[in-house]
Amino acid sequence: MFAAQYAGEKTFNIQPGTTVPPGPGEVRLSVGYVGICGTDMHIYHGVMDARVAPPQIIGHEMSGVVAEVGEGVKNVVIGDHVVVRPLDYCLNCPACDAGHSHVCQNLKFMGIDTPGAFQSSWTVKSRTLHKLPSNVSLKMGALVEPLAVACHDVARARVAKGEDVVVIGGGPIGQLVAMVAKAKGANVIISEVNATRRQFSEDNGINTIDPINQDPVAEIAKVTNGKGADVVFEVSGVQPAVDVMTEIAAVRGRICMVAIHSQKPQVDLFKFFWKELELLGARVYEHEDFEQAIKLIADGSLDLEPLISSVSKINDIGSAFASMDGNPSGMKALVSLSEEF
Amino acid sequence: MFAAQYAGEKTFNIQPGTTVPPGPGEVRLSVGYVGICGTDMHIYHGVMDARVAPPQIIGHEMSGVVAEVGEGVKNVVIGDHVVVRPLDYCLNCPACDAGHSHVCQNLKFMGIDTPGAFQSSWTVKSRTLHKLPSNVSLKMGALVEPLAVACHDVARARVAKGEDVVVIGGGPIGQLVAMVAKAKGANVIISEVNATRRQFSEDNGINTIDPINQDPVAEIAKVTNGKGADVVFEVSGVQPAVDVMTEIAAVRGRICMVAIHSQKPQVDLFKFFWKELELLGARVYEHEDFEQAIKLIADGSLDLEPLISSVSKINDIGSAFASMDGNPSGMKALVSLSEEF
Ligand SMILES: [Zn+2]
Ligand SMILES: [Zn+2]
Ligand SMILES: [Zn+2]
Ligand SMILES: [Zn+2]
Repeated sequence: MFAAQYAGEKTFNIQPGTTVPPGPGEVRLSVGYVGICGTDMHIYHGVMDARVAPPQIIGHEMSGVVAEVGEGVKNVVIGDHVVVRPLDYCLNCPACDAGHSHVCQNLKFMGIDTPGAFQSSWTVKSRTLHKLPSNVSLKMGALVEPLAVACHDVARARVAKGEDVVVIGGGPIGQLVAMVAKAKGANVIISEVNATRRQFSEDNGINTIDPINQDPVAEIAKVTNGKGADVVFEVSGVQPAVDVMTEIAAVRGRICMVAIHSQKPQVDLFKFFWKELELLGARVYEHEDFEQAIKLIADGSLDLEPLISSVSKINDIGSAFASMDGNPSGMKALVSLSEEF
Repeated sequence: MFAAQYAGEKTFNIQPGTTVPPGPGEVRLSVGYVGICGTDMHIYHGVMDARVAPPQIIGHEMSGVVAEVGEGVKNVVIGDHVVVRPLDYCLNCPACDAGHSHVCQNLKFMGIDTPGAFQSSWTVKSRTLHKLPSNVSLKMGALVEPLAVACHDVARARVAKGEDVVVIGGGPIGQLVAMVAKAKGANVIISEVNATRRQFSEDNGINTIDPINQDPVAEIAKVTNGKGADVVFEVSGVQPAVDVMTEIAAVRGRICMVAIHSQKPQVDLFKFFWKELELLGARVYEHEDFEQAIKLIADGSLDLEPLISSVSKINDIGSAFASMDGNPSGMKALVSLSEEF
């Protein structure tokens, strides 16, 4: 048993970990693969140290194999391939009472607020587990969590077949949102400033616009015959995207807020009034988003292989993070926790 | 036949008007009462002269009697008491195609973009008319239009029985929104800086908070046991309201944007993400909002009498506008166009 501890200041230490026997309702997993996401990169840069409280084992996009089950666990058996929905909710607050436990007022996000998946053995509540069917590899399984984010966003925005969808921001989540929306039958365009990311999207069969050298408002008006976008996903987190989102949205268009805006940007609320726009915040995922993500991979609707930029061994976790740092061509780096899988 | 022309710079001229015979599908009305609303006050101040193009007959909150019907008109007969839904939509744009003609991309608002109701005889398309039942007076009928705005806002925000609703801004529209939400069975609080308007609300049986001398976030948390408001209506148009709206909203709360923000305020988009908030722009009204407004008056659900601050004759239109100017105790001033009604 070993664990990679984030120690602050872009540093990971590989240490012998503690194998935690599963209590009632808990399951111990042998971790297979763990993906590195934007939040992990933020943690790596130290900006979330107050919340993460290093030294801490981070990591939340994972796949693994059930190694041990605690008392009363009914949903999995030893040997099952699984993924973790890394949400620890309280079931005792107004949000949980209203059925929105994924945005619980006391939510602990596993791998940020509590220890995560960068360890060979991880003990979790059995309610967090979703089973992988036999035709989904553990490697692909590590992509279920970010894909579930995209499924949640697309569901929240109520994307329907034939609708015109613009995704602002072509990072990993933006690409996944575009893929899920396209799988729903929408006409999807990604607006992305980086040429490498635009190329990735085009290679993947999704049209792009360059918001720096093209006029997004004119382009979207042209391709929608003056209607505008039925749905806009804001996945970039910058002011120019906020400026453009209200311009390109159709009358009664929906704008889904996926990005984290740490500043309060200026928003054209007049356009919300004038065009009766809708803004829908979307955070993490619900049970059904994980199930849909697994289904989309299992039934071959989406090929996520091109998103995997690299697979590193756990001993190389430091260089895996370093290689993703400021690298627009890096979509998803995976870290392998076991020689077995 | 006479008309009150807005001539620019807070000036109205009473002039002999032109009686327009109704063409096919048109109806000529004898105008009864016309209300003065916030938009009319903006026009009066000259800030909308570019759009209104004075000299122009304004006025859009009205009631009247059918005086003459054009060829093919089937929905009304001479003598019917009616109100006008003052929207002239094109039925030939993507918004109209999608069934949202009230936010038509080429919408002409009657009384702003085209001549309005401050004339003794007004000729309009028959499709704009809604009949008043016999127990709704023409005086009350002039309040149907602003009440329909409130019905539209409450419907757009999907207010349900038992929900906690906060209305930010206690002017005429804010009061009407609060009354309609209360009639739906919601628990309603108005947040209003002006003591006179708070008193109006309290006298009308709706609780208030003073956002200057009280802490709205703490107050709303207290009355909702830490949940927050299920629905917030922003009816004030100022930055502090935009700051507070995202604070007081519950997880998954809906914020309805009723106010016109001519500047782009700073908006806490992080809160939209974090609490999965929803922002819903709401503009004017649809056919069913007028029908509901008429029904709420006719069945006695709402008593709008206290909202009527004054009734002036058309010759006194100038002083009617002047008396509303910067007067927080003035809710709704009506102008009478006829000695008959
Ligand atoms: Zn993540
Ligand atoms: Zn909770
Ligand atoms: Zn009005
Ligand atoms: Zn139209």
